[in-house]
Amino acid sequence: MTVNTVEKPSTTPDRIVQLSLAFRGAKTLLSAAELDVFTALAEGPLDLDALGKRVGVDARGARDFFDALVALQMLERDEGGRYANTQETDLYLDRRKPTYIGAELERYNAYVFPHWYLLTQALRTGKPQSGARATGHYSAAYADRAVLETLVKGMTGGTLPVATALAEKFPWEDYQTLIDVGTAEGCLPVQIAHAHPHITGGGFDLPSVSPLFNEYVEKHGLAGRLRFHSGDFLHDSLPRADVLVLGRILHNWGLPTKKLLLKAAYEALPSGGSLIVYERLVDRDRRVNASALLASLNMLIMTASGFDFTAADCTGWMDEVGFRDVRVDPLTSEISMVTGLK
Amino acid sequence: MTVNTVEKPSTTPDRIVQLSLAFRGAKTLLSAAELDVFTALAEGPLDLDALGKRVGVDARGARDFFDALVALQMLERDEGGRYANTQETDLYLDRRKPTYIGAELERYNAYVFPHWYLLTQALRTGKPQSGARATGHYSAAYADRAVLETLVKGMTGGTLPVATALAEKFPWEDYQTLIDVGTAEGCLPVQIAHAHPHITGGGFDLPSVSPLFNEYVEKHGLAGRLRFHSGDFLHDSLPRADVLVLGRILHNWGLPTKKLLLKAAYEALPSGGSLIVYERLVDRDRRVNASALLASLNMLIMTASGFDFTAADCTGWMDEVGFRDVRVDPLTSEISMVTGLK
Repeated sequence: MTVNTVEKPSTTPDRIVQLSLAFRGAKTLLSAAELDVFTALAEGPLDLDALGKRVGVDARGARDFFDALVALQMLERDEGGRYANTQETDLYLDRRKPTYIGAELERYNAYVFPHWYLLTQALRTGKPQSGARATGHYSAAYADRAVLETLVKGMTGGTLPVATALAEKFPWEDYQTLIDVGTAEGCLPVQIAHAHPHITGGGFDLPSVSPLFNEYVEKHGLAGRLRFHSGDFLHDSLPRADVLVLGRILHNWGLPTKKLLLKAAYEALPSGGSLIVYERLVDRDRRVNASALLASLNMLIMTASGFDFTAADCTGWMDEVGFRDVRVDPLTSEISMVTGLK
Repeated sequence: MTVNTVEKPSTTPDRIVQLSLAFRGAKTLLSAAELDVFTALAEGPLDLDALGKRVGVDARGARDFFDALVALQMLERDEGGRYANTQETDLYLDRRKPTYIGAELERYNAYVFPHWYLLTQALRTGKPQSGARATGHYSAAYADRAVLETLVKGMTGGTLPVATALAEKFPWEDYQTLIDVGTAEGCLPVQIAHAHPHITGGGFDLPSVSPLFNEYVEKHGLAGRLRFHSGDFLHDSLPRADVLVLGRILHNWGLPTKKLLLKAAYEALPSGGSLIVYERLVDRDRRVNASALLASLNMLIMTASGFDFTAADCTGWMDEVGFRDVRVDPLTSEISMVTGLK
């Protein structure tokens, strides 16, 4: 692999420099979500002064900030200098639309970006750098109401695109009841219940999540069909349902707990019931899907023993627990589901 | 710009999610540079255990870390599982090669990434968030020897690709002497003097930089032709030379100081002398070059009044000071030069 050093390098350092500075564009978008730029512009285009005042950005940085968002293709600017949302940011980052995923960006901004500063320390020690969340268990973090809200609502932003896809790509007509394990606000059961009026069930999560779930489900007019089941999946058995979902749950935990959760799901299902696991799956050769490998480094930083895994890993564990007809299907560009029958 | 919210969105949030998470890939590369992964692999491929031990990465995160670097195309992995540098990372991130730019990544890792956490605060207040460096003046930061070294050596990593290009793309045969203003280690004059044996001169910077400049120039065998000129360009006149260079200097300052520096350069040049300004220039319409606009947001975070600018801005200021034949030429994919004659 050694390359001779020549007077005129045959390659350029551009890709290295661009990757090394990619945190700037990311943080610019995260700050824009934090400042609610896209909700402000969803009402209509605004010029520089009006937009700066509206979102509380001082004049010194305002023009560079909004123009950087134009160059990053997250805003548009017309010939008259008025800024507007793009089709994407209008749909997904306007807080008042049901398609809003900005809460996930608020979670990255408040909790993930600052912890990634500690990546080197996490790599050197193998130990999480996230304080209260470091066990992988949310109970400590959820003791603080503000943290609870940011994390739980953030999960809704992350789940929404997956839930929309899952409502289409699973044979819901074959089942009556659904429980989403680690449900947060209940985004997933709400989307499924909306799309499939015969489905009832709800979500399972720590007791402190209950008021947020109830508020969200009520707001979506589904309180009659979906209810909250309170418990701790490390200690309590899971509620019974025809379909159980473990979405972005297994990756938080080490292998023994991953298997324990799969076993608990198997036990809670009736014969013929189905488990859906969804995650950012690492590709089989561990050399293509950077996003899933970086998600696993996030588990290194955030949890005591969590890691992301391949489809083959997950299929193997599910086979071992007793699931049959285990199969893998894509849901979104980043996330896939692994399903199995009891 | 308002888009109707439909049941099945006609677009996906993929680009939003990918941009919002781009800090992870960036930080992974920055940590790899910090841990000197590429210098270790420049000696030859290593398997997972050997590489982890060599660079001090604990087994828990090692495989995900190195495989993420493979997926980011910063490492390769052969069928036997041995990791190796890519052509690019071998050339630019092996500390022992003269083409090393990793010091720039170390500077991003130690100073830039952590300060970007404060972007929202910088946007709200219009005030820098960088403590001692906030005046834009390096004298305070340079009081700490470790900070001085990281910043000054980092600048060499950032300057090297530009200096290599500048050695080719300027008519050095028409001139005898060169002074690089704000020279740090002297990377730029060293590259020019190497490529053009008739050139003499040196660099101008704060007194504390002198030992690092002298060591670097000595190491490159150019102590006989290049010497250090000590001073503060806000208060002292600039050394005289046929060619003066202001590279990534103007962007640190507000408009009055930008003009003061251009005037000081004009005064220090002989008739027929030439000024070279190089920067990441913002595109004329401020809607394409995200990198330059983000560099300007970096100035918001780091300095009291600095900002990046367009070619037209710079050309206008140079015309005003009295330069003639002012023209703009690209140097690297990110950086251009604006030159003018006295």
